[in-house]
Amino acid sequence: MAKAKKTPRPRAQTPKGFRDYFGAEVTHRAAMLQAIAQVYHRYGFDALESSAVETVEALGKFLPDVDRPNEGVFAWEDDAEGWVALRYDLTAPLARVYAQHRNDLPLPYRRYAMGPVWRNEKPGPGRYRQFYQCDADTVGSGSVAADAEICAMLADVLETVGIPRGDYIVRVNNRKVLNGVLEAMGVADEGQQAAVLRTIDKFDKVGEAGVRELLGKGRLDASGAYIDGVGLGDDQAEPVIAFLTSKGDTAQATLANLRAAIGDSTIGAEGVDELDQIAGLLSAQGYGPDRIVIDPSVVRGLGYYTGPVFEAELTFEILDDKGRKRQFGSVAGGGRYDDLVKRFTGQAVPATGVSIGVDRLLAALHEKGRIETRAEGPVVVTVMERERMADYQSMVAELRAAGIRAEVYLGNPKNFGNQLKYADKRASPVAVIEGEDEKARGVVQIKDLILGAKIAENASLEEWKERPSQFEVPRAELVARVRAILDGPA
Amino acid sequence: MAKAKKTPRPRAQTPKGFRDYFGAEVTHRAAMLQAIAQVYHRYGFDALESSAVETVEALGKFLPDVDRPNEGVFAWEDDAEGWVALRYDLTAPLARVYAQHRNDLPLPYRRYAMGPVWRNEKPGPGRYRQFYQCDADTVGSGSVAADAEICAMLADVLETVGIPRGDYIVRVNNRKVLNGVLEAMGVADEGQQAAVLRTIDKFDKVGEAGVRELLGKGRLDASGAYIDGVGLGDDQAEPVIAFLTSKGDTAQATLANLRAAIGDSTIGAEGVDELDQIAGLLSAQGYGPDRIVIDPSVVRGLGYYTGPVFEAELTFEILDDKGRKRQFGSVAGGGRYDDLVKRFTGQAVPATGVSIGVDRLLAALHEKGRIETRAEGPVVVTVMERERMADYQSMVAELRAAGIRAEVYLGNPKNFGNQLKYADKRASPVAVIEGEDEKARGVVQIKDLILGAKIAENASLEEWKERPSQFEVPRAELVARVRAILDGPA
Repeated sequence: MAKAKKTPRPRAQTPKGFRDYFGAEVTHRAAMLQAIAQVYHRYGFDALESSAVETVEALGKFLPDVDRPNEGVFAWEDDAEGWVALRYDLTAPLARVYAQHRNDLPLPYRRYAMGPVWRNEKPGPGRYRQFYQCDADTVGSGSVAADAEICAMLADVLETVGIPRGDYIVRVNNRKVLNGVLEAMGVADEGQQAAVLRTIDKFDKVGEAGVRELLGKGRLDASGAYIDGVGLGDDQAEPVIAFLTSKGDTAQATLANLRAAIGDSTIGAEGVDELDQIAGLLSAQGYGPDRIVIDPSVVRGLGYYTGPVFEAELTFEILDDKGRKRQFGSVAGGGRYDDLVKRFTGQAVPATGVSIGVDRLLAALHEKGRIETRAEGPVVVTVMERERMADYQSMVAELRAAGIRAEVYLGNPKNFGNQLKYADKRASPVAVIEGEDEKARGVVQIKDLILGAKIAENASLEEWKERPSQFEVPRAELVARVRAILDGPA
Repeated sequence: MAKAKKTPRPRAQTPKGFRDYFGAEVTHRAAMLQAIAQVYHRYGFDALESSAVETVEALGKFLPDVDRPNEGVFAWEDDAEGWVALRYDLTAPLARVYAQHRNDLPLPYRRYAMGPVWRNEKPGPGRYRQFYQCDADTVGSGSVAADAEICAMLADVLETVGIPRGDYIVRVNNRKVLNGVLEAMGVADEGQQAAVLRTIDKFDKVGEAGVRELLGKGRLDASGAYIDGVGLGDDQAEPVIAFLTSKGDTAQATLANLRAAIGDSTIGAEGVDELDQIAGLLSAQGYGPDRIVIDPSVVRGLGYYTGPVFEAELTFEILDDKGRKRQFGSVAGGGRYDDLVKRFTGQAVPATGVSIGVDRLLAALHEKGRIETRAEGPVVVTVMERERMADYQSMVAELRAAGIRAEVYLGNPKNFGNQLKYADKRASPVAVIEGEDEKARGVVQIKDLILGAKIAENASLEEWKERPSQFEVPRAELVARVRAILDGPA
């Protein structure tokens, strides 16, 4: 018999669609989450961290996108609990938490939550199967004041993290108005209603004429394929078109257009009234249409939410992969969903909230150069004499005690060049050198690596030439002189 | 045919062994993690957040506890990737990350990581299947200076989060010394070595005499069951006992005892030398035996680690469930594990690190009353006239702009008593009231709920009686007067 084959080495690889985050990627996100949490907290929202694992039963099938398959979650069978799954968002767990703890929680319950969620979807460029969400929701208030508050808070959050007024807009729409439009169209069949919703979702892409075609007989799309239409009459399309194009110069003009679009639908009128109240509340608090605007062209999530719907877009332009200008686009969305808790308790509990796409928001700030990318590498104390490690450790201890990030080189100290290469890879601002000779004379060498890099980049500049990038200082002055370099020239 | 039964309502319940964290539980942990991250960062460690999901292949079976079954992870089969699992600690993922990204990472690579890990174990009281870890590791340095640095950093972390010197001790042992002891015992058989390790693990429980019995013929345990022994001769037990009881009054005394215990074992001598160097490095940096001590009775993890082993214990006493005094115990552990990366690359990469049990550390701080438990509920602006919601929203907007946590009551405002009950449940310091009459006179009522609660608690105190817990102020003074209450009496 042949000798048993050795177990092959495992591949060192994240599963497809998952990734690792290093250094500043982690700390910048943490800082942003903390800034957002502070705004949420100031608005009276309490932190909640629910379990990452839920029973499949509790999670339900409440994914916001209509077309999502049930298989969109990572699920497995637990010996004791049956099927369990990783949360796919922070809203479904909130419904479970509220139903489970409702006797102990205040009513209304304002809560915020931040953390990873997992989606079992085909990964693509920039599309990961684990990503962060950062949500705030109010459970147990049917008042539109709760919706208005979420919108105002969203605007505050964006400004707090570094998106200035003018670079973002929060758009508000209302599912009830759409229901009114469906009534005005005379579309009562649920299948046809769903088809109309799907068509509306394509408004961004196909425009007014495209929507008319898709609601009617159908449409030849760009690829040459013929897309069947919903089969409605031409005049039935009018209320939808009126709805989608109702945005006027002022909130009042938009609201008037909407009232026309919904005809005499009661639910539609309720929806328009709600938008009217939201606009009024926000305007009274100083949130004008430069920040938050009633905009019925917002259709994302209309199939999921039951009342007001919000979306925050960044309006500045970036260059896409092909070098074309385009708006950065959506970074947050939300709305009212009054049926989520009912699954558990049988009682309808009104709820409204928002989810911020933290990773997209971070990407936007990078795009605008609003995130500090200055190297914050540590001061590296090099090791000239292996047996004097305690001396070098004392130096870093002093530096740290002064609040300076510092470390001793802990690799093989034999090759000094490797130590300097290491300092370079660490983006260290300063290297400290103390050999036998320096030790004897009570001094250390300080190598200004920031200046060194500048000189290497542009050696002709006289100002660099005059300043030595390496100099000797008394050992006792180590901390003060390093500090001076870190603080930069006066 | 009978009518199809309605789907039963889902249970609103976390899976067994999982839980939710509310409000201060979340924010206190976040604050602690941030404080720890700052210390790690100052020591030159970089943040890493690896994927929560790993291939089972990459994760391996490196759980620190020898007796753990392979089934200790939550795993499922992915269509594309085969078997994947939730990480059970932050060390196995580090090995994968380092192997995957080694060409881009500095060498040595110091990294910290914090986040939840998942264990598929039987849950028990206080034992959850999802919990936080907070690790720091140095990959690629074989120097004991790296181990000493981890120990010093651990002491700094404990003091930073609020455990004063004297209330904790970091104990250091070395697996190599134990290997030397096994050599001195003449135990070369791997099965017998494992049996000796398991016996040593029971030293805490059964003491010196118990260990002697268990190494020899066996022992009648407290429950009356007879536990078979390893079957060694009496004299073979001597080196183990010498090892376990070698702690002397000084590091030098301990080291001398250890040298005696290992006889002429080379690996044992190497281990003692390492401990000697660690003690020397730490002492040179001012970390005396009141903070970090060589202590061979630390046996947890000796089966897993390959060199120095560390454990941080809190030494103050608490009362257990039965009201008996006991030491709080271990809150962090770690050590050197030189073989972890080798699985992937074939090359041995030395590594050393520590893992802090954040939840236990938080529990300890609570126990000692070192965590601020002052209510930080929001100011609640009550709703007296539903149609004047914009007025109330303006008040909270002003309060928030002044940095004061504030919210409008968003429940049904009909019953004013419910609004005050809500404020009570939110631990609100202040309620603000503005009815029709107040509005007309340009004033608001301020209800000092902190004072109100004190009066309710002890109505006889004259000082409370003299101060009204509700008073009227001009609307324009709202923010200033609320601020005065929050700041407390001068």
